[in-house]
Amino acid sequence: MTAPDVHAEAVVVDGLQINNWSAEVLKELQAGGIHGVNATCAVWEGPTETLRLIGDWCQLQAAQPDLVRLVTSSAEIRQAKRDGHVGVLLGFQNTSPFADDYRMVEVFHRLGVRIAQLTYNNQNMVGGACYEPVDAGLTRFGRVIVAEMNRVGMLIDLSHVGNQTSLDAIATSAQPVAITHSNPTWFVDSPRNKPDEVIRALVERGGVIGCCLYPNVIGGSGTTLPEFCTMVARLCEQVGVQHVGLGSDCTRDWGQDYVAYLRDGRWRPTDQADPPRWPQWPSWFTGPADLPTVTEGLLAVGLSEDEVTAILGGNWLRLFDEVFPGTRSGA
Amino acid sequence: MTAPDVHAEAVVVDGLQINNWSAEVLKELQAGGIHGVNATCAVWEGPTETLRLIGDWCQLQAAQPDLVRLVTSSAEIRQAKRDGHVGVLLGFQNTSPFADDYRMVEVFHRLGVRIAQLTYNNQNMVGGACYEPVDAGLTRFGRVIVAEMNRVGMLIDLSHVGNQTSLDAIATSAQPVAITHSNPTWFVDSPRNKPDEVIRALVERGGVIGCCLYPNVIGGSGTTLPEFCTMVARLCEQVGVQHVGLGSDCTRDWGQDYVAYLRDGRWRPTDQADPPRWPQWPSWFTGPADLPTVTEGLLAVGLSEDEVTAILGGNWLRLFDEVFPGTRSGA
Repeated sequence: MTAPDVHAEAVVVDGLQINNWSAEVLKELQAGGIHGVNATCAVWEGPTETLRLIGDWCQLQAAQPDLVRLVTSSAEIRQAKRDGHVGVLLGFQNTSPFADDYRMVEVFHRLGVRIAQLTYNNQNMVGGACYEPVDAGLTRFGRVIVAEMNRVGMLIDLSHVGNQTSLDAIATSAQPVAITHSNPTWFVDSPRNKPDEVIRALVERGGVIGCCLYPNVIGGSGTTLPEFCTMVARLCEQVGVQHVGLGSDCTRDWGQDYVAYLRDGRWRPTDQADPPRWPQWPSWFTGPADLPTVTEGLLAVGLSEDEVTAILGGNWLRLFDEVFPGTRSGA
Repeated sequence: MTAPDVHAEAVVVDGLQINNWSAEVLKELQAGGIHGVNATCAVWEGPTETLRLIGDWCQLQAAQPDLVRLVTSSAEIRQAKRDGHVGVLLGFQNTSPFADDYRMVEVFHRLGVRIAQLTYNNQNMVGGACYEPVDAGLTRFGRVIVAEMNRVGMLIDLSHVGNQTSLDAIATSAQPVAITHSNPTWFVDSPRNKPDEVIRALVERGGVIGCCLYPNVIGGSGTTLPEFCTMVARLCEQVGVQHVGLGSDCTRDWGQDYVAYLRDGRWRPTDQADPPRWPQWPSWFTGPADLPTVTEGLLAVGLSEDEVTAILGGNWLRLFDEVFPGTRSGA
């Protein structure tokens, strides 16, 4: 098959996007042949703010019934492909929507949230994070949250989590977990990427890591498509192709104020003299519509059609099938 | 002077009480000759819930103008003594009311809050806590919060904070800090009490530690008045009397549900088969009205009238004078 045919045949799932969602942006996903996406609806937000962001999704689905479908299973993602919709899995990049209340895990699960990252950059009540100088590991509350996510069937994401907390979460979780959008540190040595120890532990428990296209974790916009795809292929050799996916971390249609919010939240004043700026994306991947180019690149570095199909979505779908039913063993 | 005279002459400040506040309870403080108290108005609560608890205080002051005065300075506490009122300093036992927003420090300072403990039992965004197995120290957000508390003039309390975070906070703070209600671990080895290393660092920076009467940190209700007062006297010898106060941790008029809330918050389910219960208080100190008995005990173990006066309130007032004006050096 040609690369476009491989892409068109696959059920394509993006492990994470954090766009300023709209019909226009959803059409970019359609153009990229994406059928399922973990769409971030909380980074720093608490419970009430998150309810409103979920409300935004309800409104967008009602306004665009032929474009977007809120989904909670791999079956619904497969159906979205058949219907020409983008299937949206609601996801959190922080446990801030749970505040200090373990019961919020079930509450947000009932609202359709299926993926939650334990911490976002900074330490919280649950555990340590990738940008803190020290990580004390999963806390007492963190252990309750992990058990509760296992019970209701919510996928644990470790992308921005600290390494010790990641290892603790992998060891504690009764279910496989995910790194939805990070690369190995051997590719780019960033606090946002993962050392072999964490990737190995994740894989041994059946988890999936989504290779990430965000400029800061691939070494900047100068990194080439073959360099990125060679990294993906090498990671597949290292851990097994069944544990590798993609999580583009697309950030479409945000102003510069939003990157300052992501970095500084409300936890520190933004340096007005030198505010954070969005990085430049590589020319070969500027947004969701460019995903077929990545498929082409993966085939070009020698991955097979079956391997690329697994990376494009098959592995995420298998993980969702395993985790989303939950263990239901009681809190 | 007789012990009652020493007590009556002193300006008496209790470093912390967490009662179910009412006119009846305030009258117990009056009976105990207490003129100033750090009254807890948040343990697990977030911003909105805390606003309501401050609203409760506004309502209680309006209903009991001859009994209670919300105060924000040692001068107002001295005035409360002259007027026969109980001066109430609004205080937090957690930084949960600040949520993830450093600007809430100034907002709550404007509402009269003058004391905040960095963490309550469990790790949070600011730092580690006394009941967590590991303490990673003061976080990036924690450093912002400490600087902001210094700037606006809000006293940092370390009573339930982890030891590493306590040492970091003491080293980071531009102002002296407090342990409002804990004892040395050499008296009772509890996670809630403080090792010499922490007490020494606190004292070297001009802080004050309030010896605590809560049964669990004095070794149970069987501990005698002379045993408690000997501990206070020995601590004065160790660190200097000017660094020692009292923080009774009185818990008047709560049902058993409230101790379960303190322990478990909303972060884990309460064990219904064996729910937390309030401990029994010693016969010689069952509530605020018994504070004159402690004065008697302190004099009986050989502390001078001046020393007891400093312990009863003078040291807290000096610390308030030093910290509450703030550094105002900008965030």
